[in-house]
Amino acid sequence: MSATSGMLGARILELADRLAAHSDLPGALSCTYLTPAHRASAKELAQWMQAAGMAVSIDGVGNVVGRYTAAQATNRTVIIGSHYDTVVDAGKYDGRLGILTGLVVIDHLNRTGRRFPFAVELIGFAEEEGLRFSASYIGSTAVAGSFDRGLLARRDRDGVSLAEAISATGFDPADIPKLARARQDLAGYLEVHIEQGPVLLQEGLPLGVVTAIAGNCRYWLTVSGQAGHAGTVPMGFRRDAVAAAADIVLAVEHRCSNVPTLVGTVGRIEVPGGATNVIPGRCELSLDIRAGDDVTRDAAIADVRAEIDAIAQRRGVTVEIKEIQRMGAVACSARVQTLFADAIARTGITPRFLPSGAGHDAVNFGGITDTGMLFVRCGNGGVSHSPREIVTAEDADLGARVLLDVLQHYEE
Amino acid sequence: MSATSGMLGARILELADRLAAHSDLPGALSCTYLTPAHRASAKELAQWMQAAGMAVSIDGVGNVVGRYTAAQATNRTVIIGSHYDTVVDAGKYDGRLGILTGLVVIDHLNRTGRRFPFAVELIGFAEEEGLRFSASYIGSTAVAGSFDRGLLARRDRDGVSLAEAISATGFDPADIPKLARARQDLAGYLEVHIEQGPVLLQEGLPLGVVTAIAGNCRYWLTVSGQAGHAGTVPMGFRRDAVAAAADIVLAVEHRCSNVPTLVGTVGRIEVPGGATNVIPGRCELSLDIRAGDDVTRDAAIADVRAEIDAIAQRRGVTVEIKEIQRMGAVACSARVQTLFADAIARTGITPRFLPSGAGHDAVNFGGITDTGMLFVRCGNGGVSHSPREIVTAEDADLGARVLLDVLQHYEE
Repeated sequence: MSATSGMLGARILELADRLAAHSDLPGALSCTYLTPAHRASAKELAQWMQAAGMAVSIDGVGNVVGRYTAAQATNRTVIIGSHYDTVVDAGKYDGRLGILTGLVVIDHLNRTGRRFPFAVELIGFAEEEGLRFSASYIGSTAVAGSFDRGLLARRDRDGVSLAEAISATGFDPADIPKLARARQDLAGYLEVHIEQGPVLLQEGLPLGVVTAIAGNCRYWLTVSGQAGHAGTVPMGFRRDAVAAAADIVLAVEHRCSNVPTLVGTVGRIEVPGGATNVIPGRCELSLDIRAGDDVTRDAAIADVRAEIDAIAQRRGVTVEIKEIQRMGAVACSARVQTLFADAIARTGITPRFLPSGAGHDAVNFGGITDTGMLFVRCGNGGVSHSPREIVTAEDADLGARVLLDVLQHYEE
Repeated sequence: MSATSGMLGARILELADRLAAHSDLPGALSCTYLTPAHRASAKELAQWMQAAGMAVSIDGVGNVVGRYTAAQATNRTVIIGSHYDTVVDAGKYDGRLGILTGLVVIDHLNRTGRRFPFAVELIGFAEEEGLRFSASYIGSTAVAGSFDRGLLARRDRDGVSLAEAISATGFDPADIPKLARARQDLAGYLEVHIEQGPVLLQEGLPLGVVTAIAGNCRYWLTVSGQAGHAGTVPMGFRRDAVAAAADIVLAVEHRCSNVPTLVGTVGRIEVPGGATNVIPGRCELSLDIRAGDDVTRDAAIADVRAEIDAIAQRRGVTVEIKEIQRMGAVACSARVQTLFADAIARTGITPRFLPSGAGHDAVNFGGITDTGMLFVRCGNGGVSHSPREIVTAEDADLGARVLLDVLQHYEE
């Protein structure tokens, strides 16, 4: 490893720059599922994987799959994966860092002639962000065998269905189930990802071991009060929907503060048809609550619901709570967490364990094989989903070295 | 008066129904400045005024002006006015009650052969709501001599300017200043209006004497924090623009509560480009603060600004405060308040003095002649700007009797 020290990280950043040249938009990175830029990205990733000694194919949903065979004939496979699609006006590392880290590690193994008792499959998942069809994880659910066929009828803004978009590539959507791996062949799933948050940055640590991927619950709240003239209704007579919504926002913030791994967010708030001189009769807001484990999260949701009831009662308004999404937390494999932690410790860094508040492709493998994630520190305050997203070559290099170490110790 | 007791109110409601038959929309009342429905309303009002013994004209901006001459030749004039334009999906009484109350009172004077030492001019103002050109009081400012010529270039949604809309009626907008009354001729301005609020209803009183018309200050607030992933940024690291906005909403509510005549409203709030899973980096909200006097209002504004600064400091956000409108309160004439109060007392009802939180045509006469307003109770919780707006025939009748009494005692 000493000969390449520092070089793997620089190579990852260089490849991320090259991959970002394929974009749906001029002057900004946007790589939406099955657009020409997305197809070009897949083609380039495939070429790089081939050059790194892998047998490569692009599968029916657009995943780029490179297989680095084992030392002897075996079906046993460790998957290294992450996604190459992006949000609009994205950063270069969300998803891609994980693919490129796997790529440089396998390239290094190939150059040094090293193979393992298991195959290593590097997968660039085609779709994780859910932008085009409002459906996340199309790539990883296909491989994990949990693809939801109901999504095939979903249409994008132009009226093209997911089934049509996939058919246009020459693949029959009816064959998606054939993309699923046999569970008995899987030896594990490893994903390297930028943290997309500020924790490692704040603590001065380049890497973190993910303990669990938070399941989130999402709600849409409609507060109904009484509209009125902003000048003529005394304060004591009002049933103001925005004032009630403000109470709810602060109740969520208060309940979710100071509890490890718990977070609560009101990302949207609006007064439909509101006017400056009208007391709001209605206010709508979103609510997203997550935690590293479902018990912590559900306790917070129960308390927030009770608090909303109390606010409604006190203010004479009604609050309709519509659940939009409920996903359980996925715990990472204790064995893989230990492998990552030991590898980090061997670089001289103290292992930091933390949950992932964001969802990742790894959630789809948690139930079927030993699954683990390694977080790499984000710069710029931890910003992601933005061109301001950054990773240093040093941190990317440490990530690659730790991944390599984990593979080397995987079967011990 | 005894012979007509109860009949004036019934007549007012009947005329309001007939006037509401002219609408821009089928099945709902909408009478926007200079639309065909608006022109038809003016024509019908003019006919009614003529039948009530007035010399009638429709002036260059669309005001319907009926002059009931004095007992002897004089220019001295008491104006009775309010507006006949409406908001979209309006009630039948906002503005129109004041015109129709004047109409039935003058009709009664005419039938009973009664004249005063001053002329009474009944004006149906063409435009008060400000819908078409985002400019309020076009009718009353023209008569008061304070019309803002800068508004002539304003365009409606269809690209028609105010100047073009007026020209299309055959009037030269350059002649608007000629519509202004000479101050020395004015003996007073009286306006009867529905309260558009719940105070009289709550107190079981049919009428109220307006002390002042609140001046309102309007602001547009932009809270800027730090956007972030709703799952990955711990609560303690956030600079959430919506949470800060919630603090502001509650600070406004708290400061404006329990202070007589003071009201504060956040009617609009939004997160531009917000998403359920993104911590809001920005939140915009409106703020409207009013009071019966400017000292009370400005003290509240100063305190709210200080509180906003404290919130911004505490939360690490910035708040830009843009003043959109600042109008001073207009006090009603003490003499006219007394005339209204005495007339109310003579009906056996305790006079209730209250400010108007909403603006009215009367504000444009406050500086140039003795100005007063009489409020008539609204039903249905005090709702206005809605088809649910109601007034009873009994209350309308009391309003007409009080207006008649005030005219009879006006020169004493």
